[in-house]
Amino acid sequence: MARRVISDLFGKAGLTVNGDGPGDPKIHDKRFYSRVLAQGSLGLGESYMDGWWDADPLDEFFTKLLRARLEQRLKPLKTLLPYLKAVFVNLQTPRKAHAVADVHYDLGSDFFVDMLGRRLIYTCGYWDGARDLNEAQENKCDLVCRKVGLKQGDTVLDLGCGWGGFAMFAAERYGASVTGVNISDSQVAYADKNRGDLPVRFVCEDWRKADGVYDHVVAIGLFEHVGYRNYRRCMEDVSERLNDDGLFLLHTVGRNTSTVAVDPWINRYVFPNGMLPSIKQIAHAAEGVFVVEDFHSLGPHYDRTLMAWHENFSMNWHKHREQFGERFRRMWSYYLLSCAGGFRARSIQLWQFVLSKRGVAQGYVAVR
Amino acid sequence: MARRVISDLFGKAGLTVNGDGPGDPKIHDKRFYSRVLAQGSLGLGESYMDGWWDADPLDEFFTKLLRARLEQRLKPLKTLLPYLKAVFVNLQTPRKAHAVADVHYDLGSDFFVDMLGRRLIYTCGYWDGARDLNEAQENKCDLVCRKVGLKQGDTVLDLGCGWGGFAMFAAERYGASVTGVNISDSQVAYADKNRGDLPVRFVCEDWRKADGVYDHVVAIGLFEHVGYRNYRRCMEDVSERLNDDGLFLLHTVGRNTSTVAVDPWINRYVFPNGMLPSIKQIAHAAEGVFVVEDFHSLGPHYDRTLMAWHENFSMNWHKHREQFGERFRRMWSYYLLSCAGGFRARSIQLWQFVLSKRGVAQGYVAVR
Repeated sequence: MARRVISDLFGKAGLTVNGDGPGDPKIHDKRFYSRVLAQGSLGLGESYMDGWWDADPLDEFFTKLLRARLEQRLKPLKTLLPYLKAVFVNLQTPRKAHAVADVHYDLGSDFFVDMLGRRLIYTCGYWDGARDLNEAQENKCDLVCRKVGLKQGDTVLDLGCGWGGFAMFAAERYGASVTGVNISDSQVAYADKNRGDLPVRFVCEDWRKADGVYDHVVAIGLFEHVGYRNYRRCMEDVSERLNDDGLFLLHTVGRNTSTVAVDPWINRYVFPNGMLPSIKQIAHAAEGVFVVEDFHSLGPHYDRTLMAWHENFSMNWHKHREQFGERFRRMWSYYLLSCAGGFRARSIQLWQFVLSKRGVAQGYVAVR
Repeated sequence: MARRVISDLFGKAGLTVNGDGPGDPKIHDKRFYSRVLAQGSLGLGESYMDGWWDADPLDEFFTKLLRARLEQRLKPLKTLLPYLKAVFVNLQTPRKAHAVADVHYDLGSDFFVDMLGRRLIYTCGYWDGARDLNEAQENKCDLVCRKVGLKQGDTVLDLGCGWGGFAMFAAERYGASVTGVNISDSQVAYADKNRGDLPVRFVCEDWRKADGVYDHVVAIGLFEHVGYRNYRRCMEDVSERLNDDGLFLLHTVGRNTSTVAVDPWINRYVFPNGMLPSIKQIAHAAEGVFVVEDFHSLGPHYDRTLMAWHENFSMNWHKHREQFGERFRRMWSYYLLSCAGGFRARSIQLWQFVLSKRGVAQGYVAVR
């Protein structure tokens, strides 16, 4: 029965079990069907990690699956639990927000250097005119600087600064003074070690603890960790940190529809307590605090970025195999390629918003 | 007392009663103060129509007033009534939606030709590279065509087509077949008379009655009349009218914050039952129906458009003076210049959204 249900669902997405088409799933263990039926997204991911199935290419499996908008039907009752948890518990309090640093960002910078490339930037690149990942990441940093109209000597608060890639770019290329804030000790230590003489500083603290007033605020890949209960608070805090004529650039992954739930597989293995906002949720949080000056949708750029990360990861895997093992390799591939498929299917999005406190007087002219 | 309260409020906006600065109000009748205090927006507008006060220039009076965000404090209890009416009554049923056609769009095409210029387009122009109003309106039409990627032979549904200006432009320049839908008999009759041999047709009916399936749907200046109770229905209807790979271009005036109320003065004299949406309301209505591909904020272009309309209106007033009279002239100036001030203060906005049903496969590349 489970086999028929799952095979039918796949069929509706144009996928044939044990077929020869691109993305067709090859099932190695018959328990696959009942596990997916019982556990939905979590069962699909964990059974992949356990080697119960494969698909070639895996990203195309997800593209087809998500393009068919079957994800609703794959949600068994079990996924109600994380949903209820999200409703009744603030998963992103300053204490709980640390979980993501522990599980993910502290894997070791060597591992990430090999995957992310030169500036160690762990967010979507901007591929227009870029020949490779390094250029796509510099393009993205440059796009952000141009969108806020960054000038020599401007001060910038970078919330969720990662390993300091954007902060150092903005200081190097635009002569800005940047304060980066981040909850991962190891990322902050790395950034601090590599900042040279640049006018940048890095502080290990929650975004709620930032102080000072800046010409601009950027949050590139922070909002995915903020949680819907804190979106409004985040907007208000940023407004307090921002000069009246400054701009706030919000760069975030988003969903087409509003939810307060997290994907249980992603939550367990990749981003504990992460949550993707919708435009409605962002607009609600910003209302009365900010004027929305610009919105730029860049999802397909994240597909390319994730595929480039996966290529780097695969190419360098021999260096990390011994430390992490085969189950980690499958987990990590599943993470990168399922996300790439999600962006390719336009099921998830990457947005850049430019927000102002009072409306730019003569109007904001968006750069691309 | 009323005088002190109102003068203080103006003072907070940098306006001096009977002063000599730009936009300073000159009060000709002392009853002005208590009337504004008692009736808020309605009293301000009606006392202007009655000649109780002036300001030079009037648009600058509104820019300063609205930039100071005083509008909240100017709302006395009386404005609660239209608010409650909006909450409990669907102001924009097909029957009631006709009121705006009766009061406004049926003023006579001669009057509007003199104000709006060659193509008789009654929405915000796009001024980049335009030398005058006619060019700004053609630029806007061209921008809309380019945003939906219009090709020779494409079919377009134009909801709220006015006097057919966009429809005829798209047919002339791009070879599209356009169906325009509008509830104003006189506008539809005018459009029909002027369509020549172009592949366009105009139908006098409510947007809810439109049928057929089109390559693209545009709504340029419709959503302001749809009403928040019908936003969702409007999105769903448009989705049904649209090919799976087509685009929906939504061009609308909007507010920075969500409301269900209408401005009582604008409601009584200019746009009965009109209502400005917020981004949150639009995102809520579109959620699960459309993917938001692009958002473009153009408010300052409407400031210039309204000032150009006001210049045309003033220049041609001698032709209409006898028919409409002085109170109408003051009412019309107040309408155009208060709106221009609203856009200049960034208190109201003009947005173009591009929406797709399933997400454009390789991503939507926004044109400007």
